[in-house]
Amino acid sequence: MTEYKISFLPHDRQVTVEDGQSLIRAAMDAGVHINASCGGEGVCGKCRVIIESGEVEGGVSEQLSQEDLDNGYRLACLSKVKSDLTVRIPTESSIDAKVLNLQATARKTARIKQLNLEDLREKGMFVPPVEEIYVEMPVPEGADNESDVTRLVDSLQRDHNERRLEFDLSVIRKLPDVARQSDFKVTATIARPVRENGKNRVINLQAGNTTDRNFAIAIDIGTTTIYGQVIDLISGKVLSQYGDFNAQISYGEDIISRIVYAEKEGGLEKLHSLAVSTVNKVISKIVKKSGIDPDEISTITFAGNTTMTQLFLNVNPRYIRRAPYVPAANIYPPFQAPEIGIELPHHVIALVYPQVSSYVGGDIVAGVMGSGMYRDDELTLYMDIGTNAEVVIGNKEWLVCAACSAGPAFEGGGIKLGMRATEGAIEDFSIDPATLEPMNVTIGNVRPKGICGSGLITCVATMFEMGVIDNRGKFNRDLDTPRLREVDGVYEYVLAWQDVSGIDRDVVLSEIDIDNLIRAKGAIYSGCMTLLAEVGLSIGNLDRIIMAGGFGSYIDLEKTMTIGLLPEIDAEKVTFIGNGSLMGARMSALTNSIRRDVVATVKRMTNFELSETKSFMDNYIAALFLPHTEQQLFPRLKARMEQRHKDLEQ
Amino acid sequence: MTEYKISFLPHDRQVTVEDGQSLIRAAMDAGVHINASCGGEGVCGKCRVIIESGEVEGGVSEQLSQEDLDNGYRLACLSKVKSDLTVRIPTESSIDAKVLNLQATARKTARIKQLNLEDLREKGMFVPPVEEIYVEMPVPEGADNESDVTRLVDSLQRDHNERRLEFDLSVIRKLPDVARQSDFKVTATIARPVRENGKNRVINLQAGNTTDRNFAIAIDIGTTTIYGQVIDLISGKVLSQYGDFNAQISYGEDIISRIVYAEKEGGLEKLHSLAVSTVNKVISKIVKKSGIDPDEISTITFAGNTTMTQLFLNVNPRYIRRAPYVPAANIYPPFQAPEIGIELPHHVIALVYPQVSSYVGGDIVAGVMGSGMYRDDELTLYMDIGTNAEVVIGNKEWLVCAACSAGPAFEGGGIKLGMRATEGAIEDFSIDPATLEPMNVTIGNVRPKGICGSGLITCVATMFEMGVIDNRGKFNRDLDTPRLREVDGVYEYVLAWQDVSGIDRDVVLSEIDIDNLIRAKGAIYSGCMTLLAEVGLSIGNLDRIIMAGGFGSYIDLEKTMTIGLLPEIDAEKVTFIGNGSLMGARMSALTNSIRRDVVATVKRMTNFELSETKSFMDNYIAALFLPHTEQQLFPRLKARMEQRHKDLEQ
Repeated sequence: MTEYKISFLPHDRQVTVEDGQSLIRAAMDAGVHINASCGGEGVCGKCRVIIESGEVEGGVSEQLSQEDLDNGYRLACLSKVKSDLTVRIPTESSIDAKVLNLQATARKTARIKQLNLEDLREKGMFVPPVEEIYVEMPVPEGADNESDVTRLVDSLQRDHNERRLEFDLSVIRKLPDVARQSDFKVTATIARPVRENGKNRVINLQAGNTTDRNFAIAIDIGTTTIYGQVIDLISGKVLSQYGDFNAQISYGEDIISRIVYAEKEGGLEKLHSLAVSTVNKVISKIVKKSGIDPDEISTITFAGNTTMTQLFLNVNPRYIRRAPYVPAANIYPPFQAPEIGIELPHHVIALVYPQVSSYVGGDIVAGVMGSGMYRDDELTLYMDIGTNAEVVIGNKEWLVCAACSAGPAFEGGGIKLGMRATEGAIEDFSIDPATLEPMNVTIGNVRPKGICGSGLITCVATMFEMGVIDNRGKFNRDLDTPRLREVDGVYEYVLAWQDVSGIDRDVVLSEIDIDNLIRAKGAIYSGCMTLLAEVGLSIGNLDRIIMAGGFGSYIDLEKTMTIGLLPEIDAEKVTFIGNGSLMGARMSALTNSIRRDVVATVKRMTNFELSETKSFMDNYIAALFLPHTEQQLFPRLKARMEQRHKDLEQ
Repeated sequence: MTEYKISFLPHDRQVTVEDGQSLIRAAMDAGVHINASCGGEGVCGKCRVIIESGEVEGGVSEQLSQEDLDNGYRLACLSKVKSDLTVRIPTESSIDAKVLNLQATARKTARIKQLNLEDLREKGMFVPPVEEIYVEMPVPEGADNESDVTRLVDSLQRDHNERRLEFDLSVIRKLPDVARQSDFKVTATIARPVRENGKNRVINLQAGNTTDRNFAIAIDIGTTTIYGQVIDLISGKVLSQYGDFNAQISYGEDIISRIVYAEKEGGLEKLHSLAVSTVNKVISKIVKKSGIDPDEISTITFAGNTTMTQLFLNVNPRYIRRAPYVPAANIYPPFQAPEIGIELPHHVIALVYPQVSSYVGGDIVAGVMGSGMYRDDELTLYMDIGTNAEVVIGNKEWLVCAACSAGPAFEGGGIKLGMRATEGAIEDFSIDPATLEPMNVTIGNVRPKGICGSGLITCVATMFEMGVIDNRGKFNRDLDTPRLREVDGVYEYVLAWQDVSGIDRDVVLSEIDIDNLIRAKGAIYSGCMTLLAEVGLSIGNLDRIIMAGGFGSYIDLEKTMTIGLLPEIDAEKVTFIGNGSLMGARMSALTNSIRRDVVATVKRMTNFELSETKSFMDNYIAALFLPHTEQQLFPRLKARMEQRHKDLEQ
């Protein structure tokens, strides 16, 4: 992909973007504010910029006169970068110029880290869980009437030093005909034992040499979405991926409402079969997309939270929501995929990630395993922020974990105009410190319909740093802008007026929304603090943070620290792994070392019920501020705030 | 049961019989001949006897005049023994008297031997394969939110020293509700590992203490009949038993015709489902008869010949009937019973007896295991005579085996009026050496319809010893009786004239029938001889013989030796175990020691394909005589024959 360098003036900030990127996103990445409230559809006409050198495609609009065009004016949201550029943001007042330096620093995103087969090899963690071996057996002739299975076993022993073999009934059924179709030259798929003295299980058989084709499936059973991947076990590559809404969603958006439904007559079976049917739909899509034959699939790994796992396996979840919150099991046995209705061949072994507790489930365990933190020296904070949030702290010596009752604010839940990260969601934001005009960037560059998790974080963080809201999340009543107003006794900021919005009213962010965000981030942060305190440590001891979740890797780390969601540590110490549950499911398809270690890891993951942990409430109350009661926990932010005051006072 | 002593005159032979037994069967047991051709229905009126002392019930008939009755005459077949008796057989000529002492010796039946739980305990072979353990778990309260499975595991470890536990998914599904129904007091069913370092698998769970109820099922999948037993694993007793025709029988009576059908489109699936449906019918009957709940069943064990096993498991048997006769597998993995359509709960583990070769199958292995011969010092000849015949020779050091192409003569196959041992079959026989009149005893004491295996052996043996047939199985043309005749060039003996038979013609035994019997017994005997020769031994080395099959334990051992089916050894050395396949299935339900040893045993059972073994044809031809070309192999018979000649010459 071609990349171009853009200089923004008068700020004198540079950024490198890909060919075709919109100028407004480029500005956002550079930390340069451009008024833009319509989300990038060219409706509001506010994002006027002057192209001083270089070339853009588009950017022309009825909102610009011929004179404007001749002078190099374009609408930033409609301009696509096609060369290196120098772009000037027109400043219309001296205040504007003065506050230029107050603007946010350039975006600092987390490094994306997804382990692959090479990493496993390098770390000595590669223990193939399934192998295909091509065997040439002696053809039965004369008095040689050994059974077909004995023939195969003898050949595997003699030519491949295979020992302790056992056979699936389905393989015995295939063997006589497959062997004779291919002149007794076959490929045996052997599932390796997790424990070293275990049996090598022959789970499939194919005519001829098919050792270059061996695949696995990884599935993340999310409360909202079920994701699947087809993994090539030879190259370690993901061949296809697909996610679909968990069909259970019609019976309740969150875990508790699903459990309530499961307690009704026939409810459990219903939710079980809906999860299975969504999984089957996802499998069917990814298998088709990857162009493989289902018979070439050896294993399927599932990861999900405790409730999703129990519903998926048809295990009554009713005691998960009743004190003292007892799950049915931590560890589930492997089984044959069709046994629970999965539409895959009989030989496909299904593995389910184990659970720590009712609210720290297999999705979190998968992340801990897949990210490798369970075997590293570094003291790591693992955070998975989704419909709920879970945190794990520890290293190869010890692990503590907890579920934080954060709720779904980061997925748009509990926010008046909150929404998932789909088309029309404001996902990025900036504010002009002088005029308080917004710069909204929406998913799909269409009119704003609402605000998603990353937008919300950016909004609140930016407004806080600009002094638009105070550390309790309340708007500064002294600010003079029509965008700040009181409706039914509640203060709110208008992100987009109805005439440029994608809905039939203004898109707003209210103090109630901000309060919900603060409660959510407070629950997560105080969860981390409580866990650290329980093991006698503090933020300063953390060597790194691994973030997982649907957030997206582009989120500005500095802003997550500004609102006090993440503790303030070097951005270099933060990595983002995306869907940790899916990653863990994929990693355990690639290596038995994870399957071998997972049971011991689950056993040493000490679970804390935060509501029963004494210090939690104090920590929680202290975290209900931006960024926190104790500002010294966020020294960089404190310094920036102090600098801002000084700058404004000059 | 009351028993009475009966003296027969003028032979002066005594016998003890049960109250109500018919006099004709008492005479047969005593080795006393009474003319009786109608099978015991009182039609022929020939079995006149004089009751000299004591009392019988019945025996009166229109065939007897008032004078006869006054003189104590009764028909033996209609007389039931009701006291000690003295019975005189009227002799109507001096020849009759002279030949009295030529009659057969009293019946010598084999000892019946079925091992039971006590035998296993005494021999140190009792290793329970499934145990039920009653557990009281701590009730989850306060902060105790261990998962239900962990709770159960911890209790089993702490209170019962159970280790290395793993759980079936079905148990995890049951646990949360069952535990709470019974205040966390449950009974866990634990399947023990066959190998010592294996896992203990928790396969079932019941509320409260049910440790006194634990059952298993044993199934013999015969080509003709499928038998089942419910076994109480606490007492070792058989609670119920039932057999039904294998529904596959409509698609061919023997193995080869079944394989031929299985090769047709959809044929294998059809035969598979027919076997499964018969098994389900048998299970349903025996479970009902025993009054147990299917949920209380832990395991089911199957034994059958190689073809029956493959058809039952839906494994293509086509290569079994094609040189070099390759079975699909020797050893089958355990599986969950419903996996192949067995209508039992999901937790029931199904075990299938392994096979030695295409024609020495799991039924024979089951007999070898169940009889204990695989672990005894004695050199044992094991014979299973059914639709075909198989022999095994050896002890705990070594085992050789072979299938003998004997055909179904002993089940009535290939015999003109041969039939299975059902009502109307002549099952016992004697002949008057002077008049050559028969004494037929039929199953059900009804008119003769045909002759079954035991009747055939007795007929041929008796006629041979009486000189009615020679050692090539040919009738003595010099004998003067209307019962011997030539029809279409074939000599035959009329066992029952049409007027007293149960069919629309005479019941006869022809030289062709006798020839078929000789071929069958020749195949079996020469099989034994060949195996013995291959290991450098002879008949004299045998310590004992174990007979298995549908024969019935009442068969006269001396007569099976007279025709040369069994080698001539002391009757005390012969034991009869009945259905060896069913017995073996039952024994492996009772102890893991058999499951542990069976794989090694199968591996050391050296199979001989007799048709490929050089010496077999010579042995076979030598065995096509009564009893054998080499009379010295049967010294007792030789002595009796010589004595008979002397007696007749006196």
